[in-house]
Order: sequence, then C-alpha cells, then structure tokens
Amino acid sequence: MSHVQRSELRVRYAESDQMGVVYHANYLVWCEIGRTDFIREFGVSYAEMERRGVALAVSEARLRYHDSARYDDRIVVETRLADVRSRAVTFDYLISNADTGARLVSARVVLVSLDPSGHPSALPAEFRAQLQSAL
Amino acid sequence: MSHVQRSELRVRYAESDQMGVVYHANYLVWCEIGRTDFIREFGVSYAEMERRGVALAVSEARLRYHDSARYDDRIVVETRLADVRSRAVTFDYLISNADTGARLVSARVVLVSLDPSGHPSALPAEFRAQLQSAL
Amino acid sequence: MSHVQRSELRVRYAESDQMGVVYHANYLVWCEIGRTDFIREFGVSYAEMERRGVALAVSEARLRYHDSARYDDRIVVETRLADVRSRAVTFDYLISNADTGARLVSARVVLVSLDPSGHPSALPAEFRAQLQSAL
Amino acid sequence: MSHVQRSELRVRYAESDQMGVVYHANYLVWCEIGRTDFIREFGVSYAEMERRGVALAVSEARLRYHDSARYDDRIVVETRLADVRSRAVTFDYLISNADTGARLVSARVVLVSLDPSGHPSALPAEFRAQLQSAL
Repeated sequence: MSHVQRSELRVRYAESDQMGVVYHANYLVWCEIGRTDFIREFGVSYAEMERRGVALAVSEARLRYHDSARYDDRIVVETRLADVRSRAVTFDYLISNADTGARLVSARVVLVSLDPSGHPSALPAEFRAQLQSAL
Repeated sequence: MSHVQRSELRVRYAESDQMGVVYHANYLVWCEIGRTDFIREFGVSYAEMERRGVALAVSEARLRYHDSARYDDRIVVETRLADVRSRAVTFDYLISNADTGARLVSARVVLVSLDPSGHPSALPAEFRAQLQSAL
Repeated sequence: MSHVQRSELRVRYAESDQMGVVYHANYLVWCEIGRTDFIREFGVSYAEMERRGVALAVSEARLRYHDSARYDDRIVVETRLADVRSRAVTFDYLISNADTGARLVSARVVLVSLDPSGHPSALPAEFRAQLQSAL
Repeated sequence: MSHVQRSELRVRYAESDQMGVVYHANYLVWCEIGRTDFIREFGVSYAEMERRGVALAVSEARLRYHDSARYDDRIVVETRLADVRSRAVTFDYLISNADTGARLVSARVVLVSLDPSGHPSALPAEFRAQLQSAL
C-alpha cells in the first residue's frame, strides 16, 4: 500500500486575506511542505537533491477548494505519491482541518526533473527507485 | 467576440525562489490581478462588490507551467471570461513574457459566489449581466 | 524573569529567493508566529481576541539581519515581551538556526490596540494583566 | 538635490489580511520595488548587477506604520538614496495612497554588498559613482 505522509502546520496570520480565510494560492505552498516531508522520509532531502544538481519544477497543478482554513487553525497535509516516471513525478494532496477533520483542499501536482541548465532530464536512478518503493 | 483583458506587471524579487525563477504559487496571484482588472473594466470594481456583500471564492484552479518567469521580467496576463452561471464564474488566463512573447503559464480558475455568511448564493443580476456582455 | 517563548519552524521553499536565502520580509512573518505563540501561552489566543473586537496592528518594526536562513533549515524564534502600555505592546525577537545556533535576525515590533473601527483603544484590562505577568 | 524615484502599484488581494488591510510585511516588498526602479533609473538594472556577481543584501530595516493600505488602493512609493558607502547603501522610502495622498509607511533599509560567496565586498566603483550622482 502506498505511503501517506502527514505534515502538520498552523495557519499564519500572513496567510489570511480580507475574506477572513486563507488566500487560495497558499495551499500550493502547503503542498510543497508535504512534498518536502515526503521526500525527506524516503532517504534524501530535496535541499540535498538540489545541491547535487537535480531540480524538480512544477509543470502542472490542480486544486479543488472544498472548505476554508482560517488563522490559527491546525492543518494536516496528507501527501501521496501518485506516479513516478523517468522525468516526472506526480503527488496527490489532501489538506484538512486537524481538529474537525473537515476536508479543505484536494490537489494534484506534477513535477518534472530538470538539470542545472533548466532542461528536462531523467530523475537520478537511486532517487527514482526510492520513490517507487513508496508506491 | 469575447473580451480579452491585458494586465501588465514586472516580476518582483520577492516572487523569485532559489531556483532563480518565479515561485509557482505566485502565478495564481497574477491571475487574480487579471481578474480584478477584467471586472473593473466591466463597470464595477471587485472591491466595491465585496463592500456590497458579494464575495467570489475560488473553488477550482488549474495551471500548466510552460516556461519560467524571472526577476525583473515584464509580464502580460491575458484574462478571458470562459463561463458565467448563476453561482459560478470561470476565467481563463494566458501569462506570457511581454518582451519575448514566450508563453509561461496557462490557467483556468472557477469562482463561486458567496453571501456574507459564506454560503453559495446567486450572483447579483446586474453583475451577471455585465459579465455576460463580455462573453 | 521575563518569559521567553520558543517557536520552531522549518524554512519553506516559497520563502527562499533567487539569492538562495530567505527573502528578508519573511522574518516579519516569523515574528508574528512567535507573537501568536507567546499570546496563546498566556491564556487567550489572538484569534479569540480578534473575535472579541480587539485588534493589534503593527505600528513600528525594526530588524537587524546578521546571517541568512536557507530552505529546509530548522529555525527557532525566541519571543520576549519588552513593554506593555495601555494602548501598545512591544515584543523583541531573536531568530536563530536551531541546529547551529547561529543568530540570524534580531527584531523589535511595536503593536497598538485598535477597536473594530480601526481607532486606537485601550487594551482589555484582563489581557493587559496577563501580558504584564510575563514581564 | 537628491533624486526621488516614484513607483506606482495597485494593492493585490493577496496582500490583504483578515484585518482588511495590507499585511505589514508586504511594505518591505514594495520598498524593494522602489529600490529596483531607482537603480534601473541610474543606468544599470539590479538583475544585471546580480548576473555580474554583485548582490545587495538587506542588513537593517526600519518601518513606521502611519495608516493602512487596502485592496485595490493605488499606492505610490517614493524612494530616496540616503547614503552610499564603500560596502553599504541606505535608502529611505515614503509609501502613500496615490489618490488621497495619505502617508502610510515611512521606512529605511540598509543594504550591504556581497560577493558570490556571500562575503561583504566593496560596491563596484562604477555602480557606486552612479548612485552618488543621485545624492
């Protein structure tokens, strides 16, 4: 069964907008927190990957907003790996209120692997194997 | 023929990330700039709408990233209205480099109309009619 | 002796800029995390205060940048109350790298108490007393 | 007489917070817009400077908040050069509402010159001379 990474955070005041809820773009930032935690769990930090010259750039993102998060709410981001290919990785996210369990946002983000000059390149074999063990 | 709203901006340093390009969540902020300009063009500012008790909340967003924007680049956001329903409005966006014409991001954002208590409600008839004239 | 509130966080990718370090404005966001934790520790959440009609608005901020934080670094924010007056509260912050202990930013933020219409007003007596117990 | 650079912008929805005003950290982002425009006016873009290996890092920032900006307000940032030294540059900012003239924030930001490895280094002579002509 595929690994589910749980990341917890608390909503920052800066993330609220004048509607009194979290500004919609911030959920993409929270997805990245989930992704960072997921990758670290599988043996290599993304910060370390970048130092080795591999970058993952977002090529596609899709978000569905079901309910709102508010300042000071405790949030849980559940990150699952949906697909690993030679040059692309897809993660699915479910963002919920940690106290009420209310589902807030579901999202899918596709990333492509880039070399230091910004061209698509194959994921390092070791990293790809580590991720595939999470499927 | 449907109206295309052009908004121009210059990339801020704060919008860059350590990959040297614009952080992917910021394109949603730029879409909102396009939407704000589009709505203002049709006779009512979104700020004024909110003061009258109508809010538009993002219910779905989809972005495809084709190429990268960088600090100090001049950017153009083209906003088109794709659909108007009684409780929902859909906008399409094409974000490009204003100097090279390179296509950076294409996006679709669906918004739903909420009353002051946060419940779905019909768009004000006048506003809906104004938008429909843009289709 | 005055209370020191410790808040921990991990640097987000979105907080980095193209210099490869945390963008300087983000430290103000981290100060607010420290302040929120500090206030919660003293018996009332800031979110709850706002619901009761009391807002604290920043009236002055001063930051000294000593060293840089980077993506994925573990950070500690130490928040101290420096002064409490009838309409103003001053907090001091020391932001450090949690692993190396390196001092990154020291800051002071002054906040004034506002009523719901945005005018200066006295801090609620109970809240002021709670804060003064932390001095 | 010293040059005053005027930069105009319109407040973005993303810049508002749940108090209904611009979140205080965003004024530092606006100061950077002013600084970028100021430097560009004097013959070299900051983006170009970074490509040549010179970075300006913020070493100190001080802000006083007088009044609030709100979503969709038109804002003017006035940037003045206060001081140029061999390794440091100081800018002063006055941020106002472009329509009412209300003074919102006054700020001072000190930047230090860094070489590509992040160590303090002298400003390039040509750039320093260009800036000094603005004093």
